[in-house]
Amino acid sequence: MLRQAADRHGLLVASEVAEAAHVAALEPHVDLLQVGARNMQNAPLLEALGRTRRPVLIKRGVAATIEELLLAADSILAGGNESVILCERGIRTFAEHTRHTMDIAGIVEVKKLSHLPIVADPSYGTGRRDKVLAMGRACIAAGADGLIVEIHPDPDNAQRGGAQSLPLGQFAELMKQLHLIAPALGRSL
Amino acid sequence: MLRQAADRHGLLVASEVAEAAHVAALEPHVDLLQVGARNMQNAPLLEALGRTRRPVLIKRGVAATIEELLLAADSILAGGNESVILCERGIRTFAEHTRHTMDIAGIVEVKKLSHLPIVADPSYGTGRRDKVLAMGRACIAAGADGLIVEIHPDPDNAQRGGAQSLPLGQFAELMKQLHLIAPALGRSL
Amino acid sequence: MLRQAADRHGLLVASEVAEAAHVAALEPHVDLLQVGARNMQNAPLLEALGRTRRPVLIKRGVAATIEELLLAADSILAGGNESVILCERGIRTFAEHTRHTMDIAGIVEVKKLSHLPIVADPSYGTGRRDKVLAMGRACIAAGADGLIVEIHPDPDNAQRGGAQSLPLGQFAELMKQLHLIAPALGRSL
Amino acid sequence: MLRQAADRHGLLVASEVAEAAHVAALEPHVDLLQVGARNMQNAPLLEALGRTRRPVLIKRGVAATIEELLLAADSILAGGNESVILCERGIRTFAEHTRHTMDIAGIVEVKKLSHLPIVADPSYGTGRRDKVLAMGRACIAAGADGLIVEIHPDPDNAQRGGAQSLPLGQFAELMKQLHLIAPALGRSL
Repeated sequence: MLRQAADRHGLLVASEVAEAAHVAALEPHVDLLQVGARNMQNAPLLEALGRTRRPVLIKRGVAATIEELLLAADSILAGGNESVILCERGIRTFAEHTRHTMDIAGIVEVKKLSHLPIVADPSYGTGRRDKVLAMGRACIAAGADGLIVEIHPDPDNAQRGGAQSLPLGQFAELMKQLHLIAPALGRSL
Repeated sequence: MLRQAADRHGLLVASEVAEAAHVAALEPHVDLLQVGARNMQNAPLLEALGRTRRPVLIKRGVAATIEELLLAADSILAGGNESVILCERGIRTFAEHTRHTMDIAGIVEVKKLSHLPIVADPSYGTGRRDKVLAMGRACIAAGADGLIVEIHPDPDNAQRGGAQSLPLGQFAELMKQLHLIAPALGRSL
Repeated sequence: MLRQAADRHGLLVASEVAEAAHVAALEPHVDLLQVGARNMQNAPLLEALGRTRRPVLIKRGVAATIEELLLAADSILAGGNESVILCERGIRTFAEHTRHTMDIAGIVEVKKLSHLPIVADPSYGTGRRDKVLAMGRACIAAGADGLIVEIHPDPDNAQRGGAQSLPLGQFAELMKQLHLIAPALGRSL
Repeated sequence: MLRQAADRHGLLVASEVAEAAHVAALEPHVDLLQVGARNMQNAPLLEALGRTRRPVLIKRGVAATIEELLLAADSILAGGNESVILCERGIRTFAEHTRHTMDIAGIVEVKKLSHLPIVADPSYGTGRRDKVLAMGRACIAAGADGLIVEIHPDPDNAQRGGAQSLPLGQFAELMKQLHLIAPALGRSL
């Protein structure tokens, strides 16, 4: 159903998969399979994803080291699936002004150790709408290959995720800012 | 002596002060007084700094919350000294790929809660030369009002701090990148 | 095979299960099913365990809050399986003198909020043989309902886990100490 | 005044000192000088305490490693004052069910690396009255040389610290429990 709606509007479908047994059934219907942070070290799931040919986005666990994140990616690569994207979205620390503490130096470490692309999720990582623009800019400025940003036409009345979702106007502003920052890294959007 | 050397070359002198009793003696000789992270909650020191008229740079403790950092600044402001600058230079977490984890969202939180300027120290905060450029860009992109960056003409043979110091060429590159990023925030360097 | 060896010697079999699809196949052969810390929030696995009638031991994730641990247990209880045992085995912090930091107050919090039994694993939690006795005593003194302790006749030559395994003599000493501590809590071993 | 009240009732006086310049003036009036966690790395203060002959109790900072705690103690010992007592009272982690996470394995590490006595403060370390007994037992069972416990005849109406203070009856219960636990370590109270 999601597939049909996406095709009608020329969109792609990404879906989280939490169980090795579901991978094969999902594969024909999605463009990207996501591994949630809680499943980052779910060995059977990672193995099953190694056998698909869909791109996989794997989210860093809230207490995972960069080494553990790269090992998780290796489990997928080892199965023959070379399309793995990593995602930084915060680690657990004592700091309480954001949901998690985004470890932006972790993005830099990944770029140094691996050829894999890494994106950042400032919406989930901060959990605070008033920090998404600034942290989105910071992640791109540090070298992240992309952002996952939650948007909503009316975040205050969103059914879920409203506290971390950008209204459309702010999203446009963020995109404008990123267009200015990217060239500092020799990149374009 | 430091004072004379600085005057000869038109430089400013910044000095760390670790004891309330030393503030008065240092005051005539320096342009900026620094409070180290270990002394961020040294109440007598903060009080003594409230009575000077020199600008004070106060570094966030490795386990200090943003609230505690702002309360430390308030101790100085309450004494009548209105020139207080804050500094983010990392918090202690489980992550081991950098000395500390820079809490860039903490910079954003400070900008939201306070009128005080905040700078970031990616040299000390990461402890790794290969991360200073990327983290310096990220801090400025997030809204930091400045950077503290350690530089050395020959870092590999520096007497101290070499592992986190930039050679001059990389510093020039960083400055060039920041010139491109600042306009994204409506700022210029 | 493990089952046959156990039966021959009057032992019980505990086995970790990492995938929902494996639960049914394992069930007839084991006395206890374990959920590893990495799978503490593996929703399909927890659901599948709710449908078995084997006791389940669920290990706290290295960055899991007590609330999240109890919610994971609830997922199993909700399926009708009432035999759930929790396990504290350390959280990730900046401290480096042990593998993880055992959150003994977390044991106390579990006893306050829940009727479920909770055991502690000082072998894995510390990763250091020289701390197992002291931390085992501390966990029992705090109210833990049991301990998981790795032992080996010759730990220095163990194939794995030697660094955290007790030789038999130290295990006997620990048991003697626990016999003295238990009465302080109105308990006996 | 505190001194006179103490002498009248045969009590000892302990006082926190936060500034090197105050040490000499306090020395004649107190039996024990305390260094707060915020001052654990206040170098001039530690040096001044090395020159007194009063015992010094030094509290571990909330983000201090065991190595840093022992180095702070060394600064005092190096001055010739051999009466140094350490104190574990919790570190900052993501866990929120207690004020701090008591690092009981840190006590064990100190006993291994140093001859210095170490006490624990479960009142401050947990910040929760309902955890003081259990954590006090745990610290003693792990090998702590003593406890700092806040008590109050009517904690619910205490001017400060009520949430972490024991009523007298619970303190008596704790003492009874510790009398039973100490022999497990070959000790008596």
